[in-house]
Amino acid sequence: VIPEETPLEEIGEARLLAHLRARIPGGPGVVVGIGDDTAVVETRATTLVTTDSLVENVHFSRAWAPPRLIGRKALTVNLSDIGAMGGTPRYAVVSLCLPGGLHLSFFDSLFDGLLERAAETGVSIVGGNLASTPGPLVIDVTLLGEGERLLRRSGAQPGDLAVVTGTLGAAAAGLRLLNQGARLDVEGALEESGPWTASSAKAVTRCLKAQLDPSPPLAFARLLAEQDVVHAALDLSDGLSGGMNVLCEESRVSAVLDRDQIPVDPFAASLERARGGDAFPLALHGGEDYELLLACPPERWDALKDVAVVWDIPLTIIGTFSEGAPMVSLHTSSGYTPLGPLSYDHFRKVGS
Amino acid sequence: VIPEETPLEEIGEARLLAHLRARIPGGPGVVVGIGDDTAVVETRATTLVTTDSLVENVHFSRAWAPPRLIGRKALTVNLSDIGAMGGTPRYAVVSLCLPGGLHLSFFDSLFDGLLERAAETGVSIVGGNLASTPGPLVIDVTLLGEGERLLRRSGAQPGDLAVVTGTLGAAAAGLRLLNQGARLDVEGALEESGPWTASSAKAVTRCLKAQLDPSPPLAFARLLAEQDVVHAALDLSDGLSGGMNVLCEESRVSAVLDRDQIPVDPFAASLERARGGDAFPLALHGGEDYELLLACPPERWDALKDVAVVWDIPLTIIGTFSEGAPMVSLHTSSGYTPLGPLSYDHFRKVGS
Repeated sequence: VIPEETPLEEIGEARLLAHLRARIPGGPGVVVGIGDDTAVVETRATTLVTTDSLVENVHFSRAWAPPRLIGRKALTVNLSDIGAMGGTPRYAVVSLCLPGGLHLSFFDSLFDGLLERAAETGVSIVGGNLASTPGPLVIDVTLLGEGERLLRRSGAQPGDLAVVTGTLGAAAAGLRLLNQGARLDVEGALEESGPWTASSAKAVTRCLKAQLDPSPPLAFARLLAEQDVVHAALDLSDGLSGGMNVLCEESRVSAVLDRDQIPVDPFAASLERARGGDAFPLALHGGEDYELLLACPPERWDALKDVAVVWDIPLTIIGTFSEGAPMVSLHTSSGYTPLGPLSYDHFRKVGS
Repeated sequence: VIPEETPLEEIGEARLLAHLRARIPGGPGVVVGIGDDTAVVETRATTLVTTDSLVENVHFSRAWAPPRLIGRKALTVNLSDIGAMGGTPRYAVVSLCLPGGLHLSFFDSLFDGLLERAAETGVSIVGGNLASTPGPLVIDVTLLGEGERLLRRSGAQPGDLAVVTGTLGAAAAGLRLLNQGARLDVEGALEESGPWTASSAKAVTRCLKAQLDPSPPLAFARLLAEQDVVHAALDLSDGLSGGMNVLCEESRVSAVLDRDQIPVDPFAASLERARGGDAFPLALHGGEDYELLLACPPERWDALKDVAVVWDIPLTIIGTFSEGAPMVSLHTSSGYTPLGPLSYDHFRKVGS
């Protein structure tokens, strides 16, 4: 047993790999797991593949969240992509770039989070790579999934309703709270002291959780795909304004959003109001909410609501798609304004 | 068209992705390529999955090789893993952590190399991720492959011959040459001036190429698997001493290597001799040769040679596997010495 405060550079790749391998369980469909040249998994006629990475000081900060939550989110950002295609996640490979001074306890907690989130969602971790880096910690997950019917980005048709799941803006409000020093502990609960009052604690917790430990509506999306309820779907990780523009581009349609219908997260709204601000821009451009944007034909709206009830997913009609060159308009009391993709760009730095 | 000297941080993720998407061709079995929430690919009953990354200043240096060669190697290190299982590579996803100051010309040349190597090996690039990083460039490739019969690490049996393909030590000699200032140009030819003489130019080129643009015996390995010629196989990317120890551990056998039979690369040997050194330690521990270590039952040795002739692959019997606790002995004129895994450890830095 290696003492948990040992820096990774003292352990070395081979021992770290052996340590890790002992922690990773097998799973259904896993023919060869960690320990050979490649993993081997059972697959169907088609396989969904996605990859997404978290880069330290770009997508997360070690000062902001315990490693268990960072591990959970590294899998979740990929789960969201498989979900948005209506697929079932199956197998993950995890590629890490690790600063040599990182302690084994951090590495183990990171995998606590990854393995816990994998178990929650039926995913087997089947392989990966460990590399040393002189730079920031990078967690790169590639996720394979299954799906017969797919929710594409390119299927929206003129006349379809634009629908979002859940509420928007909480994750962006959470990012602001992290910048102000608010923190969740290793159990995901609000730390005992910080920049909040007793009355705002619930809202602060909700927004931090939306940022640090999001929960995309995976089972709901799977049922949507199976029942062929919507024409198109897209993961809102890059924000509503960005997502709407992408859906219009890919489907070659235009869209009008109704400002008053956009479901601003009520907790984010109350926190913003308390500081004299407005959560609407966070809902529109903030991103990282890991909700779904759907294009639903009006005659399927009742069917869509029926699926949402099963999984207790709030739905809101925020606008409509129509014929025309790909663009998004925002309808407010003062008329129509063009809505460009002002979403989070991954070439910006955290906090900038 | 974006000017090629534009820094990536000025282009932004969305435009860079659109630029990239236009460059990536479709391919056989690609149902959905870049541009949706996930890629979708046709697969068989089992799928091979591997991931490997190149981290700047750990696995490569921008000063050492043109980006085209870095791109080629990023795919090759994964091809080698699929090859060592006897599989056929099919689909790749490429996840990049990009310093914002990197120019578009670098990014494009990196993908020139990735796409060229993919085309050479029948691989389709189907997706990926672009992230900004304040740290080193990271190229993380996940490769999916097919294979009915697999070459495992765990199948070596007492009595099997230990066999290696090709020669060993050239890649490690190439690393030393890079540290001394030797360089290949964008076409993979030796630069006009550098620390070499006319008589050593061929050896220098060969060793640099082994380090910067290796070529694992993929088609040979596939045929080996199909014809069921060997009991076990392993990719020698981490060196012969490391690879032998891993094969013994995984197969629960011991092994004896004959020092005089280890196929030291003749070009590496001549370069080392010229500086008063010995290439043998490079062949034993240097790693990155991307050759195969095989466990072949003696009665299949002729069949193995027949397969090797087809693909013009040199083979050398370097020892035998036997019953016993997993360990490796090196047989020299002075007797037997234990051979531990002194291979390259990825937690060491380049040049250290």
